[in-house]
Amino acid sequence: MTDVDSSLGVRRVAADLRRDGRAAVDWAADYLERVTDLPVLAQVAPGEIRSRLPAAPPDDPEPFSAVLRDLDEVLLPGVTHWQHPRFFAYFATSASEPGILAELLAATLNSVGFLWRTAPASTELEAVVLDWTAQLLGLPAGWHGHIEDTASTGTMAAMIAARETTGRNVVVCSEHTHSAVEKGARMLGMSLRKVAADEVFRLRVDELGDLGDVAVVVATVGTTASASVDPVPEIADACAASGTWLHVDAAYAGSAMVCPEFRWAFEGVSRADSLVVNPHKWLLTPMDCSLLWTSRPADLRAAFSLVPEFLRTPDAEDALSLSEYGPALGRRFRALKLWAVLRCYGRSGLQEHIRRGVALASRFEEWVSAEPGWEICAPRHFSLVCFRGPGDDERNLRLLEAVNASGEAFLSHAALSGRYVLRLAVGQMSTTEEDIRLTWDVLRRVSQSFES
Amino acid sequence: MTDVDSSLGVRRVAADLRRDGRAAVDWAADYLERVTDLPVLAQVAPGEIRSRLPAAPPDDPEPFSAVLRDLDEVLLPGVTHWQHPRFFAYFATSASEPGILAELLAATLNSVGFLWRTAPASTELEAVVLDWTAQLLGLPAGWHGHIEDTASTGTMAAMIAARETTGRNVVVCSEHTHSAVEKGARMLGMSLRKVAADEVFRLRVDELGDLGDVAVVVATVGTTASASVDPVPEIADACAASGTWLHVDAAYAGSAMVCPEFRWAFEGVSRADSLVVNPHKWLLTPMDCSLLWTSRPADLRAAFSLVPEFLRTPDAEDALSLSEYGPALGRRFRALKLWAVLRCYGRSGLQEHIRRGVALASRFEEWVSAEPGWEICAPRHFSLVCFRGPGDDERNLRLLEAVNASGEAFLSHAALSGRYVLRLAVGQMSTTEEDIRLTWDVLRRVSQSFES
Repeated sequence: MTDVDSSLGVRRVAADLRRDGRAAVDWAADYLERVTDLPVLAQVAPGEIRSRLPAAPPDDPEPFSAVLRDLDEVLLPGVTHWQHPRFFAYFATSASEPGILAELLAATLNSVGFLWRTAPASTELEAVVLDWTAQLLGLPAGWHGHIEDTASTGTMAAMIAARETTGRNVVVCSEHTHSAVEKGARMLGMSLRKVAADEVFRLRVDELGDLGDVAVVVATVGTTASASVDPVPEIADACAASGTWLHVDAAYAGSAMVCPEFRWAFEGVSRADSLVVNPHKWLLTPMDCSLLWTSRPADLRAAFSLVPEFLRTPDAEDALSLSEYGPALGRRFRALKLWAVLRCYGRSGLQEHIRRGVALASRFEEWVSAEPGWEICAPRHFSLVCFRGPGDDERNLRLLEAVNASGEAFLSHAALSGRYVLRLAVGQMSTTEEDIRLTWDVLRRVSQSFES
Repeated sequence: MTDVDSSLGVRRVAADLRRDGRAAVDWAADYLERVTDLPVLAQVAPGEIRSRLPAAPPDDPEPFSAVLRDLDEVLLPGVTHWQHPRFFAYFATSASEPGILAELLAATLNSVGFLWRTAPASTELEAVVLDWTAQLLGLPAGWHGHIEDTASTGTMAAMIAARETTGRNVVVCSEHTHSAVEKGARMLGMSLRKVAADEVFRLRVDELGDLGDVAVVVATVGTTASASVDPVPEIADACAASGTWLHVDAAYAGSAMVCPEFRWAFEGVSRADSLVVNPHKWLLTPMDCSLLWTSRPADLRAAFSLVPEFLRTPDAEDALSLSEYGPALGRRFRALKLWAVLRCYGRSGLQEHIRRGVALASRFEEWVSAEPGWEICAPRHFSLVCFRGPGDDERNLRLLEAVNASGEAFLSHAALSGRYVLRLAVGQMSTTEEDIRLTWDVLRRVSQSFES
């Protein structure tokens, strides 16, 4: 055994971190400066990146500079740039500077919060930032919140708590509810009942039927396809009448509630049993940071708490252990990045970010509406525009693929009332009116090229 | 709407990142230099950190320097230092320098890999580093691997795949299997049957009984309490005879397989249907990075694949989408840190890290064995030592709490054959023989103080 003097060993790691860390920070800053000039959608074929990587791991250590070099030379052509100002697909996101740096700090501390004593600061900061965010979004005081990796997990957790609390096994949602609910029901062995949506893609309350055997209804504020808003107050009435758990999925649109003018969309949400909002979508926080609140913390805890002998500690009675409120035992220090973002933007900065995104989407909507042959396909409530160019589904699919292949912008699609529609979602902090304009130009140019 | 010129906006963010990033890197390096001098276990009471934080979020932006200041002044006293060389509780971990910096890079790119085209490099690098790690651990060629956040999730995924594949609903494990299996069974509505362990804490194959109704048996290589190794070859025989899925949990000990001298513990694992190993435990990778391999990828995919309209793409047929192999849809770029670690350590560096940890544990074991009144309570296979000081359970509990309260070292406990035992797990890259010696001194000094 070769022993290394402790302080010398630590000093060496710290010296490496200082040197390589500057290179990594410079890489990150350079990347954000040049990302605008890169194709948004990776211009590679399936398997191409893999074929450029060695088939076997190295036997001997390589310097970190080799990692940075290959990140540039080998991997970067295979990166679809979520940080590009013309990333408009799915729900566009933004990893802001404080959020990025907080991830460095969280990895440095490497706290693992599976119970309070293993990570008191991480645990209590998580409770605090969830309270802060609840205030920013106008949620009722006293809700219990914690962070999951994704809305898939948070929604699954709510479904489990609902099943355990009600003793029922049926999940009800609309045809426009996110696929995570169907996947969760399959994973949990629960039955799924999908309710039809109305002409503007909201769950039809008159189709809910008898909820007597229903564990949970999932209502959505900001659906994936069109950002439609389900009638939460009426759904809450129906749930209350039948003792059914109400889960609200506001993964995307929830962030908009930092602005009072969008709070109409949260009407009735105060009556929910659980709620999911993803700051990693539209609130400047890097993946992964999905918030799950509940107004029924005792029921959530009853569903998930399992404290084996090796985790029993004398301080447990007074202390909060967040692993008792969700599926995973090990929890990383995700609260740090949300804290950094909330502090470095403040309420006013977050409001500005949301309002800019909505204003840009509104501008795009105006241009599409005014253009002969083009149409808006769903009411626009937030920063998502659903639209079609001239021609049939097939031609719109070709339009989307041609625009994405150009690398100039990246958009996605959805099916609304059986029709293929294009989606432009604004969410990047660096997106400007010029980016929207350029994208609109590309869309029209490509569409016109089909006519010749 | 206030418009900002695109390139100016990006340049400002990049300039902030360059300046604040240097401060963050310096903070990280300083932290790793001084962590040795901090108390390992946070010396705060439940609620103390929370009470020091403002009850409401700020209205206006604050500089990142304020975040770093409060990280030091407010949060740090509430941090239990997983990066401390005398963190010996649970399974000690190490977030190495390349792993830490890769998290910064992953957050900068902010790739979200819910299907291939959204993150080709992330998806294909994940497949490559899982292949690399499989080679390092001596696993069969051709297994399909991907990354989950924790072993809880990976194990739950295996249980779901087993239930879907076999059409059965019973899970079998030993009394020493990790509590994640019991929690998973509860979440999934599956029945759990716990089998007794033998005198050295291995699942008793003669107690397995008829597996005809059993979906999955979970065997453990390196149990949580004592790092015992279940008899995988015999369990594999029983599973093969009854068409039962065999899942192996090697979350901790799996990393040791980079050294051929420990591969005896993986005998029979090549016959498993699925396997979990956590590089975020003993392979120098920051939380979270838990690997799930399967020899039956088609069955895993059948259990989890659900591709809704909005995720259908023309390239889907040829492309790998890892969200089809597990519970979550959104997936962050976790492969980057494992790639950085494997490259910057290489096979030889990883072997040295594992061998040092085992040698240090062996040294501690020798001292305890030689000390009158002290005893070793389980065979030591890897870097975990289970032991007791003089006296009864109550006195050993007091011993553990007093040592932990001193801040000099942090250990944990377990129940073995109904007795309370202390656990010392080595896993930090910065731990030296001096740290082990100091901890042994503290243990004996505290124990002796009870006699006076």
